[in-house]
Amino acid sequence: MTSPADPADTGASLLAPGWAGSPAASATGERAYLRALLDAEAALTRAQAALGLAPAEAADAVSAAAADPAAFDAQSLAERARGGGNPVIPLVADLTEAVGEPYGPYVHRGATSQDILDTAAMLVAARTLDLLLPDLARTERALARLAAEHRDTPMPGRTLTQHAVPTAFGLKAAGWRSLVLDARDRITAVRATLPVQLGGAAGTLAAFGAYGAADPVGLPAAYARELGLVAPLLPWHTLRTPVADLAGALALAAGALGKIAVDVLTLSRTEIGEVAEGSGGGSSAMPHKANPVRSTLIAAAARRAPQLAATLYGSLAAEDERPAGAWHAEWEPLRDLLRLAGGAARDAAELAEGLRVRPDVMRAHLGLTHGLIVSERLSARLAPVLGRARAKELLTELAARTYAEDRDLGELLAEVPELRDLDLAALTDPARYTGAAATLTDRALERR
Amino acid sequence: MTSPADPADTGASLLAPGWAGSPAASATGERAYLRALLDAEAALTRAQAALGLAPAEAADAVSAAAADPAAFDAQSLAERARGGGNPVIPLVADLTEAVGEPYGPYVHRGATSQDILDTAAMLVAARTLDLLLPDLARTERALARLAAEHRDTPMPGRTLTQHAVPTAFGLKAAGWRSLVLDARDRITAVRATLPVQLGGAAGTLAAFGAYGAADPVGLPAAYARELGLVAPLLPWHTLRTPVADLAGALALAAGALGKIAVDVLTLSRTEIGEVAEGSGGGSSAMPHKANPVRSTLIAAAARRAPQLAATLYGSLAAEDERPAGAWHAEWEPLRDLLRLAGGAARDAAELAEGLRVRPDVMRAHLGLTHGLIVSERLSARLAPVLGRARAKELLTELAARTYAEDRDLGELLAEVPELRDLDLAALTDPARYTGAAATLTDRALERR
Amino acid sequence: MTSPADPADTGASLLAPGWAGSPAASATGERAYLRALLDAEAALTRAQAALGLAPAEAADAVSAAAADPAAFDAQSLAERARGGGNPVIPLVADLTEAVGEPYGPYVHRGATSQDILDTAAMLVAARTLDLLLPDLARTERALARLAAEHRDTPMPGRTLTQHAVPTAFGLKAAGWRSLVLDARDRITAVRATLPVQLGGAAGTLAAFGAYGAADPVGLPAAYARELGLVAPLLPWHTLRTPVADLAGALALAAGALGKIAVDVLTLSRTEIGEVAEGSGGGSSAMPHKANPVRSTLIAAAARRAPQLAATLYGSLAAEDERPAGAWHAEWEPLRDLLRLAGGAARDAAELAEGLRVRPDVMRAHLGLTHGLIVSERLSARLAPVLGRARAKELLTELAARTYAEDRDLGELLAEVPELRDLDLAALTDPARYTGAAATLTDRALERR
Amino acid sequence: MTSPADPADTGASLLAPGWAGSPAASATGERAYLRALLDAEAALTRAQAALGLAPAEAADAVSAAAADPAAFDAQSLAERARGGGNPVIPLVADLTEAVGEPYGPYVHRGATSQDILDTAAMLVAARTLDLLLPDLARTERALARLAAEHRDTPMPGRTLTQHAVPTAFGLKAAGWRSLVLDARDRITAVRATLPVQLGGAAGTLAAFGAYGAADPVGLPAAYARELGLVAPLLPWHTLRTPVADLAGALALAAGALGKIAVDVLTLSRTEIGEVAEGSGGGSSAMPHKANPVRSTLIAAAARRAPQLAATLYGSLAAEDERPAGAWHAEWEPLRDLLRLAGGAARDAAELAEGLRVRPDVMRAHLGLTHGLIVSERLSARLAPVLGRARAKELLTELAARTYAEDRDLGELLAEVPELRDLDLAALTDPARYTGAAATLTDRALERR
Repeated sequence: MTSPADPADTGASLLAPGWAGSPAASATGERAYLRALLDAEAALTRAQAALGLAPAEAADAVSAAAADPAAFDAQSLAERARGGGNPVIPLVADLTEAVGEPYGPYVHRGATSQDILDTAAMLVAARTLDLLLPDLARTERALARLAAEHRDTPMPGRTLTQHAVPTAFGLKAAGWRSLVLDARDRITAVRATLPVQLGGAAGTLAAFGAYGAADPVGLPAAYARELGLVAPLLPWHTLRTPVADLAGALALAAGALGKIAVDVLTLSRTEIGEVAEGSGGGSSAMPHKANPVRSTLIAAAARRAPQLAATLYGSLAAEDERPAGAWHAEWEPLRDLLRLAGGAARDAAELAEGLRVRPDVMRAHLGLTHGLIVSERLSARLAPVLGRARAKELLTELAARTYAEDRDLGELLAEVPELRDLDLAALTDPARYTGAAATLTDRALERR
Repeated sequence: MTSPADPADTGASLLAPGWAGSPAASATGERAYLRALLDAEAALTRAQAALGLAPAEAADAVSAAAADPAAFDAQSLAERARGGGNPVIPLVADLTEAVGEPYGPYVHRGATSQDILDTAAMLVAARTLDLLLPDLARTERALARLAAEHRDTPMPGRTLTQHAVPTAFGLKAAGWRSLVLDARDRITAVRATLPVQLGGAAGTLAAFGAYGAADPVGLPAAYARELGLVAPLLPWHTLRTPVADLAGALALAAGALGKIAVDVLTLSRTEIGEVAEGSGGGSSAMPHKANPVRSTLIAAAARRAPQLAATLYGSLAAEDERPAGAWHAEWEPLRDLLRLAGGAARDAAELAEGLRVRPDVMRAHLGLTHGLIVSERLSARLAPVLGRARAKELLTELAARTYAEDRDLGELLAEVPELRDLDLAALTDPARYTGAAATLTDRALERR
Repeated sequence: MTSPADPADTGASLLAPGWAGSPAASATGERAYLRALLDAEAALTRAQAALGLAPAEAADAVSAAAADPAAFDAQSLAERARGGGNPVIPLVADLTEAVGEPYGPYVHRGATSQDILDTAAMLVAARTLDLLLPDLARTERALARLAAEHRDTPMPGRTLTQHAVPTAFGLKAAGWRSLVLDARDRITAVRATLPVQLGGAAGTLAAFGAYGAADPVGLPAAYARELGLVAPLLPWHTLRTPVADLAGALALAAGALGKIAVDVLTLSRTEIGEVAEGSGGGSSAMPHKANPVRSTLIAAAARRAPQLAATLYGSLAAEDERPAGAWHAEWEPLRDLLRLAGGAARDAAELAEGLRVRPDVMRAHLGLTHGLIVSERLSARLAPVLGRARAKELLTELAARTYAEDRDLGELLAEVPELRDLDLAALTDPARYTGAAATLTDRALERR
Repeated sequence: MTSPADPADTGASLLAPGWAGSPAASATGERAYLRALLDAEAALTRAQAALGLAPAEAADAVSAAAADPAAFDAQSLAERARGGGNPVIPLVADLTEAVGEPYGPYVHRGATSQDILDTAAMLVAARTLDLLLPDLARTERALARLAAEHRDTPMPGRTLTQHAVPTAFGLKAAGWRSLVLDARDRITAVRATLPVQLGGAAGTLAAFGAYGAADPVGLPAAYARELGLVAPLLPWHTLRTPVADLAGALALAAGALGKIAVDVLTLSRTEIGEVAEGSGGGSSAMPHKANPVRSTLIAAAARRAPQLAATLYGSLAAEDERPAGAWHAEWEPLRDLLRLAGGAARDAAELAEGLRVRPDVMRAHLGLTHGLIVSERLSARLAPVLGRARAKELLTELAARTYAEDRDLGELLAEVPELRDLDLAALTDPARYTGAAATLTDRALERR
């Protein structure tokens, strides 16, 4: 049901190239929140009408008045929100006036500001996630292609910044994809549970009864049907699991994409150059610079998301039937998280689709350690021939000589008589020591 | 499979009354980590033996040597961990020496330090969660009893610190329970997915091949079987979803319990006194003080958990095949989160089981606002009688008079001639304006 | 030097009643950042002209073109910022075009985007802090008045939510003021050190030399003079102390005001009512509600600021001569912190100036514990008379009886023969057991 | 005054190679906290004796009993701390018993648990900072040597992971040192202000009056003199500036060292190798690996510190005269921050003293972009000769040709007839385009 983002409200900010212009930006802009607040009000009247608690004409009148966010002055609402501490109070006044008599009194009837603001936040979340998920899907598909294509492209595996043993670029891309799927699964799961909020002043639905509902417990379900959200088991004014679940899923998504970003940033360093972003950000004065801008912006999002999520997790400890601060502290961080994750997903899709991979550079780097990148294998394979102690001693000695003499380990080993029966060319070829990389890649790509 | 906590290692700390002495404390102590590291090493050799990659005797020898953590010097290991930056390197040396010839060489064969440390962390997490879940269950049961017992106990609903409309204590307790069930569900789900880690130096399982495994991809599954953990689709050295999922579930648990704590702290204030902890912390110099200590310690945990989780989410962005810092930054925060959530669960169980509820005080407080706590209802019910404008005007006027004249709203309303046909006694009784609180409570208690 | 905030850009947001409409809001809006970026560019050309590195006419031309932010399309800049990952790149293009020939080439000459963006951020910070400090001063003055006026107003001291011993409201207000002064001192100190940034592409000032500067090291000082900021010892592209210092000072300010807020929230609870905000946020359906909205919004800011500061502290670990992510992650959190602290300062000033204090209610509450609030004093004073053990035993017994018999401790003590020589009326008067509260208040008020 | 760390309590942890065995570890261990708690109690009695409020013999007796932490059972205290929620309550019982009659009653007289715990925390902080500062000084000196030695060692300046323009290693080291000095200055400033805490039950010092002090306001100063800490203007039970200031200074220190670490991690990558840690962590199976372990552990600390600081900043918003949770939430994070910063300082000193620098590798890397690393300079210098447009066009064309033809920019420029009068060898030598790096380094080194 969720409507498309408002093209008129790009939500751009000079300080936010990471999400400016993204689907998430317009889905979380001032206009989008205003629309969601109005949708929440209109749906509430419709739900009451559906249960016979308001005339159908009231539902029509409120829905009509609420249909166009542009008819409301968002800036004025924002400023008047100061008085009572939330934007719903002035919005109800303006909407009631817009509806006019006789149906104005049906606006917001029985509800509390938090019902509308929380429901609107869930609507905004739903609409943003619906736009974010396709970008995760694009990313995942592009990574699947990279993984398949480079299933057998050997490259150095790096641990603690140093070459360790060979791996394959396909396995790296498959791992990235695996994280994207993890993010997709968690976001999809949260998306499916986003609830409406309806409880009235203190979560008892009492006012709806005062206005005539025989059994107001049915109202949240009717409300949820109007909005395409889920009916919660209880009003959740101070049971903030839905917000915490969003926090966790979005922080995971930002971090998952952040892993891809930091890998691309490393691999595209001037000295490494094993990958490059499709279209780097340039510099007029330095024509050689092709900055990994997409990765940079994703990495920045990944640095911010955890602390925003922390604020949301912190708001779980919300006293009473509406807390004085914990609730208000959620609003902007939730929007920020949606924007950061949404912007990062857009950038990740562009990054993954445009990534240029340089197997020749990867292959060349496998030789940077003079063949020592396969020393682990040699430790294992020489021990049965030479004995464990002698094998270790020999490798340590030859390792030192490789650097001192600038020769490859394979060459030096070939001079050791006891090893003449081994296929040293094969044993010292880094490209033949990628272990189960290809099998793991195949298996990972089976996940859908 | 998970073994019981070590009674010899209480993990107590002068600065940590929140978790000192709790099941989680011993399950996360130095001894417990050492045991888990040894379990991880022994299981690895057994898994190799199970696949024919090591002699059964080697598996037996390593398992025997690894059986007793007390045989190892944890402090020495901790200090020697500095050299290579992790405790597995010295542990492998000590364990290899303990096994001796001829099976020493089978210790840790083909593995990397991260395989063992990550697997041990998952073992510790599994064992701690297995001890934490029963405390959540105790808490949930006690809250279910409170909710049922106080289904119809009216009390003031409070929003932004002020009385709003009546609610019932049963609904509040049902809401608390709902959060505990949310925590239980998320922790149970994460518990069921905790994976072993096995990838070798750079996640390709290559060394296992070098040591003779025809298809090393089967090894993680065998390893998982030995330890009762899950076999992951891919080695997750830098695909940190398992850790992030733990972070989210534990932060949610701490926050969920934190909501109960802040409510109890509020309701047990000297001026409020609607509830009291079963056995408050006393003060010898001030015999009237019964401090809500359990709630205080839970609230403290809820303040810390979000930021610890943030650090773990931040470690998702882990470069290469093993990051230089992001991985190391996870170790202590994960332990801290397990401790805080585990300690909070223990305190919550005691809190919920011992909570004293004072319906008479709650009832008395419903009168504190001179009957205005039901003004919402009167707004709704007087409008049809008096007209909306006149009803609002009358209520505003009478509200002012209640405080000025120190009289109840009901009394003042009884003097208004047009209202003589209304059952004002019923309409102004706060105890009869709890809305759907009872129904919502019933419904919430059906959740298992 | 810092110019006034732009009245045309209110920076209001539906989700931000805490800072909407505040001085900080307009000082940190899109327009304000655009103005600061333009100011930074114009000052750079002027500084070069001042050192003879550019014609005076170029300085005039750039200054004229940069004078009016409204001549630039902020939204377009924001969107084009995506390409290179920052807004300076498109801004330089637009400004160069606006200057036209022959002086266009002097725009941004020798600088890097970070020079301009960092300098603009410091300008925005300086301008915002200049607006925030007067609100802290207003707050401090109002609190000083409250402290002096209520120097001898006794009230319950509360620890762990329970009455402990009496204190005085003056001491509480003096403590609040002390925190405000701490915040003022730290912000004033940071304000005085805010530096320009000027280093060129990698912090060596090399391009300025290429364009003819014999000693480019003098240029940052000239630049600082143009903008009224400080000349740094070194370019600080990746030496982010200025940003971290802002983070610390703003987090401290938000937390300091947060302490006042949480105290007011507690003391204005319906059951406590010892203070009330001057003009509470009302509810049309619940006329008795006077919500402590100013405190609520301040408390919300205090919940968010620490995590925003954490992101900024995290960006200290910035690799190379410009990091790929850490720098970009600073921009929005710094703005958010300025807004939150600025909005909180505005609300705190209103809160402090309007706070209503109810000494009669405070006095009445001193009796809530049946006189036990002075039991600490009695423990001390009865021991010499009765012996320590007997004194303790007696107090414990009488403490139980006060509640059981609903009588005051003073009454019960008067029945103890051995105590007949004591001035029990004085000893059990809570108002006479405020210790050094008045002296401490006087002393604290001497701080300026 | 601060006593040396306890050598018997190494504070080692299997999960904490970053601080295990460091001076900060023993200064923050269980034993160290117990010692500080005992020191705080003994000093309190001595301060009272100094003012004539207790017999000198009582002071001697308490000091004697408190002299040996080993006489107390830390684990038992930790477990009994659960009852009242802090370790001081059982400690006072044990210490009183140890002192015995007749002076036992002077133990803790007039104080509250928070007085002792806060004062002990400040003692621990003071002692740890006194050990940390020398490690910062070692680091600073080593970096000053590196900066001076490599004042003229050119290397690539890198922005957004790509070569930008040349810089010098001296300037980089001078920048690192500048951050270390920033950290030192902030820690030194905080160290000088660490206060004792003394306020009694609710911060009024009332009990001291009840026990006979004519003017208890003098007592905190006497207390401060006993402990070598500062006398605060007000009791700061809920005015937590001292803790927040520690948080900020320690987070800055961790982040400052983190900057050095991430630079060393980058520069020591296998492909870059411009620097290397003095003694890398090795791997027996991979003899070529020399892991940058010191940097890794520092980087891990820098990732954790900001969130720990956030928790401490969050505790500023502490309600009442002692908050139920915010205070308790400070204890472990403050200890953790001291440990992390202390451990990082120790590692930074070792790192800086042992760092191996490879000027030849740096020089070689200046050629990696075929001379384009000086394109910025050429843009500036060719424009006057060729005209701006033609210069830009030419450089763009030649930049493309350098990569296509694998030739250096200098060579290609030499073929351009119009440029024959330029000293192209000088203009295209990266080592001659380090701008003001040397001057900036000199200037930075003048800072003491």
